[in-house]
Amino acid sequence: MKIQTRMMIKMKDKYNQLLDLYKEIQVVGQIGMLLGWDTEVLMPKGGIIQRSEQQGYVARLNHKLGTNPTIGELLRELKESEDYDKLSEVEKRNIHLIQKDYDKVTKLPEEFVVEYTKTSVMATEAWKKARAENNFVVFQPHLEKVFEMTKKYANYINPETPPYEVLLDDFEPGMSSEKYTEIFNPLKEATFELIRKCRDAPNQPNTSLINRKVPLDVQDKISKDLASLIDFNLEKGRIDVSTHPFTTGDYDDVRITTRYMEEDFTSSFFSVMHEGGHGCYDQNQAEKFRYQPIGNYCSLGLHESQSRFYENTLGRSKSFWFYYLDRFKELTGDIFSDVQYEEFIRAINAVEPSFIRVEADEVTYNLHIILRFEIERDLFAGKIEIKDLPQVWKDKMKEMLGIEVEKDSDGVLQDIHWSGGTFGYFPTYSLGNIYAAQFFNKLTEDIPDWNIKLESGDVSSILTWMKTNVQEKGNLYDAPELVKVVTGEYPTPKYLIDFLNKKYSVLYGI
Amino acid sequence: MKIQTRMMIKMKDKYNQLLDLYKEIQVVGQIGMLLGWDTEVLMPKGGIIQRSEQQGYVARLNHKLGTNPTIGELLRELKESEDYDKLSEVEKRNIHLIQKDYDKVTKLPEEFVVEYTKTSVMATEAWKKARAENNFVVFQPHLEKVFEMTKKYANYINPETPPYEVLLDDFEPGMSSEKYTEIFNPLKEATFELIRKCRDAPNQPNTSLINRKVPLDVQDKISKDLASLIDFNLEKGRIDVSTHPFTTGDYDDVRITTRYMEEDFTSSFFSVMHEGGHGCYDQNQAEKFRYQPIGNYCSLGLHESQSRFYENTLGRSKSFWFYYLDRFKELTGDIFSDVQYEEFIRAINAVEPSFIRVEADEVTYNLHIILRFEIERDLFAGKIEIKDLPQVWKDKMKEMLGIEVEKDSDGVLQDIHWSGGTFGYFPTYSLGNIYAAQFFNKLTEDIPDWNIKLESGDVSSILTWMKTNVQEKGNLYDAPELVKVVTGEYPTPKYLIDFLNKKYSVLYGI
Repeated sequence: MKIQTRMMIKMKDKYNQLLDLYKEIQVVGQIGMLLGWDTEVLMPKGGIIQRSEQQGYVARLNHKLGTNPTIGELLRELKESEDYDKLSEVEKRNIHLIQKDYDKVTKLPEEFVVEYTKTSVMATEAWKKARAENNFVVFQPHLEKVFEMTKKYANYINPETPPYEVLLDDFEPGMSSEKYTEIFNPLKEATFELIRKCRDAPNQPNTSLINRKVPLDVQDKISKDLASLIDFNLEKGRIDVSTHPFTTGDYDDVRITTRYMEEDFTSSFFSVMHEGGHGCYDQNQAEKFRYQPIGNYCSLGLHESQSRFYENTLGRSKSFWFYYLDRFKELTGDIFSDVQYEEFIRAINAVEPSFIRVEADEVTYNLHIILRFEIERDLFAGKIEIKDLPQVWKDKMKEMLGIEVEKDSDGVLQDIHWSGGTFGYFPTYSLGNIYAAQFFNKLTEDIPDWNIKLESGDVSSILTWMKTNVQEKGNLYDAPELVKVVTGEYPTPKYLIDFLNKKYSVLYGI
Repeated sequence: MKIQTRMMIKMKDKYNQLLDLYKEIQVVGQIGMLLGWDTEVLMPKGGIIQRSEQQGYVARLNHKLGTNPTIGELLRELKESEDYDKLSEVEKRNIHLIQKDYDKVTKLPEEFVVEYTKTSVMATEAWKKARAENNFVVFQPHLEKVFEMTKKYANYINPETPPYEVLLDDFEPGMSSEKYTEIFNPLKEATFELIRKCRDAPNQPNTSLINRKVPLDVQDKISKDLASLIDFNLEKGRIDVSTHPFTTGDYDDVRITTRYMEEDFTSSFFSVMHEGGHGCYDQNQAEKFRYQPIGNYCSLGLHESQSRFYENTLGRSKSFWFYYLDRFKELTGDIFSDVQYEEFIRAINAVEPSFIRVEADEVTYNLHIILRFEIERDLFAGKIEIKDLPQVWKDKMKEMLGIEVEKDSDGVLQDIHWSGGTFGYFPTYSLGNIYAAQFFNKLTEDIPDWNIKLESGDVSSILTWMKTNVQEKGNLYDAPELVKVVTGEYPTPKYLIDFLNKKYSVLYGI
C-alpha cells in the first residue's frame, strides 16, 4: 500500500513534469503569436527582416521544445506504469493530446520541415504574383512541388492511410473524406434548392443601403460597442486594424483585428462579430485548465463554429437586429434614419452567387467550400492534375453556382491556402457552420424564449449557454464527440439545412 | 604555410561561431524588448500575469544563452591560438566585449540572480507604495536589503575592488568615483555660480506661455514633424504613448514613446527630441556591424549624450528655434501667433531650482545628479546609512539648490532606480550632458557655420556629423576613448561649463 502510494506520487510527478514542458511550449507559442500580431498590425515596414529572424528563432525553439526526448520518455513511462489507469479521464486526455503532438512533430525529419517551409514560402510568393497578374502558369510549377511535398508530409505522419485522409484528420481530428461527403452531399442539394428559390422570389432585397458612407471613426465606435455586447473583454483583449482580419492570442490577452471600408460598413461589422466569436472562445477557456492541452481550442472546425455563430446565427438574425437597429441608428447619426427594419435585415442577408469565397453570403458560402473539398479529393485521388485546376474550377463554379469565372484571379487563384500546403483545411469552414447550427438547435431547446430575450437586448443568456456548454470545454473531446456531448448527436448537416431553409423562407417570402 | 592558413581558417570558423552565438542572444534580446514595449504601450491590462510568464521565460533563456559554456571555450581557444594576433582590431574588440559579458554573467550564481530579482521587484512595489503615501519607512527595510544585495552583486563581479567602483564601471566602463569627482566638482561650482547669476538677473523669463493649451492631435502632428526633422525614420520605427517616455528596439525597428499634456506642450516636445535622439542612435548603427557587439551602443552615458544633444543642444537652441518657431506657429494654428522669438526662447530655457529631477532645466539638472552621486558614494563608503537618506537628501537639496524639501515623495522617494538596485547609474546622465557638449564643441570646429545652417532649417549637416563621428562607431571603443577619438580629448566638463555659461549669459543678459 505504501509502495503503491509512493508510485502514484511518482506518477503524478511525471505527469506534472509533462505539463510543465507543455506549458513552456505554449508560452513560447504566445510569444510567437505576439510577434506575428505585431508584424501584421503595427510593425514599421523596415523591420521585416529583423522580425523574420526573430520568428525563425521562435519557430526553431518551438520545434526543439516540441521534440524534446524527455517528453517521449515521460509519456512512455506514464503509459507503462501500473498506476496509469488510476489517472482521471482529464489527465488521460492531456496525456493523449501531448502524445499526439509529440508523435506528429517527431515524425517529421527536420530537413523536411525546413525544405517544406522554404517551398511554401516561395510558392506563396509565386501565388501572389500569379494572382496579381491573373496568370496561373506562374504558380503551377510551385503548386506542383508543394502538392508533392504535402503528400510526403502526410506520409510521414501516417504512411498507412491515404494522404488526403491524413490531412483531413490532421486539421479536424476524427474527420475523413467519407464523413465529409456524407455531410456535404445533402447540404449541397439543399443549398442548390434554396438558391433557386431565393433567385426566383419576386421580392428581391435592396442591397444598396449597405453602401452608404459610414465614417471610419463611427465604425470604430461600433466595433467597441459590439465587443461590449458580445462580451469580448477589452481588459483582456484588443481590437486593431489589419489588411485581413484575424484573431490571435489566448486567455487574458486575445487580439482581434478588423478592416474598415467607408462604403461598406458590413465588412467591419461582421468581421468584428466573426473575429469576436473566435476571440470570446479563446478568452473563455476554463481557468482551471490553463496551460494544459485541454485548456485550448478543440479544433479548427469548432473554432470556426464560434466565429460563425457570433457572425451569422446571432449577428445576421432578425431577433438581434430587432434590438440592435435602433442602437445602430443612434451610433451612425442620421445615415440610416430612414431605413426600415425589414429592408435592412433583407439587405444584410441577400443571397447572391459570387466569385469570391470570403465575400460570399451565408447560403452560397458552403458551396465555395464543397467545391474546394471536391477538387482536393479528386486531386489526391489522381483524377485531376494541378495543371487542370483552372478549368476544373470554372466548370465547377458554373455547375454549382451558375456563374462563369472569367479570370483565374477570381477563381482558382483567390485563396492563399494551397500555396502553403494547407490542403484539407477548407472543409473545416463549413463544418463550423454545421456545428454552429447544431449547437443553436440545442440552445433553442434549452432556452425556448431565446428570441424574445434577444429582441429585448439580452444577449447574455445565449452567450452564457455557449460559454458553459461549448467554450469552457476546451479540448476535452475531439470535435465530433464534443458535438455529441453538447447536442446528443454526432455532427449532421440537417440543422444547418433546416436553419437556412427557415431563415430564408421568411426573408424571401418563399 | 599551408598549415598556418588552415589554422587561420579554423580560427575564423571559431570567431564566426562566437558571433553566431552572440547574434542569437541579441535576437532573443529583441524579442524581450518587444514584449516589454507591448507591455508598456498597449497590452490589455488583464494580460500582465501571462506577460510576466513570457518575460520570465525570455529572461531565463537569455541567461542560458549568455552562460553557454561553448562561448567560454571558444573565447579561450581563440585567445590561446597562435594566430590570435592576426585578428583585426575590430575582431579583437568583439571578442573582448563578448568576454566581458560572459565573465559577468557567469560570475553570478543563478540562485543569486533569482533572489536579487525577487528582492528588487518587492522593493519596487514597496517604493511605489512609499512614494504614494509619502512614507520612507515603508521603503527603508526593502532598500536596505537591495543595498546589501547590490554590494554582494558587485563582489561577485569583482571582489577585489570596492563595490561602488565596480558598479560605476559596470554602468559606464572606464569610470570611477575619482574620475566622476574630478568631473563633477568643477561642474558643481560653475553651476552654483550660474544659477546665482540667473536668479539675480533683472530680466526674468515669462514661462506662462508654455502652459497655453495645445490640443493633443496637434501635439501628435508636431511629434511626427520632429521625427522627420531629426531623421528618426518612421519606416524603421514608431512613436507611441506611454506613462513614462522611453526608447526600445534596435536597427530597423526602434520605438520611442512620449506623453501628451494639453497644458504643457514642452513635455511631449522635448520627450520626442530626447527619445528621438536615443532612437536615431539605435537606428544609425553601422549596417556592417549588425548583430556584432561593436554594432551596439557604446555606453549608457554615450546613449544619453545623444538624447541630450537632440533635446537640449539642438532642441533648446536659439538657432533651432530661429528656424522652427514659424513652423511651430503654423502647426499650432493661432495659439502662439502673438509670441515673440526672444520671449519664447527664454521661456523654454528658464532656470529654476526645483524638486524633481526629470522636470529640471538644463542648468540645475546636473546638480540633481551630483547630489545623487555624492549620496551613493557616501552610502557605499559607510559614511551614511539607508535610514539617514531622507534627511541627507533634504540637507543636500538645501545646500545645493537652496530649496526646502517638504515631502520625501518630492525628495528621496522620487526615483525608481535604487529600488531596482541600480546604484551608480545616475552619474551617466550628467556624463551624457558632458559628452554632448564636448561633441558639440568639436562639431562647431568642423562646421563653423552650423548656426547659419540651422537657422535656415538645415539640420542635416549637424545630424550627419553626429552620425558619422559618433553613432556609426557603435561600441568600437569604451566611451572615454570614443570621446577622445572624436574630440581629441578625454571627457572633461569644461565644454559643458562653457556652453552653459555662454548660452545663459545671452539668454539672461548677464
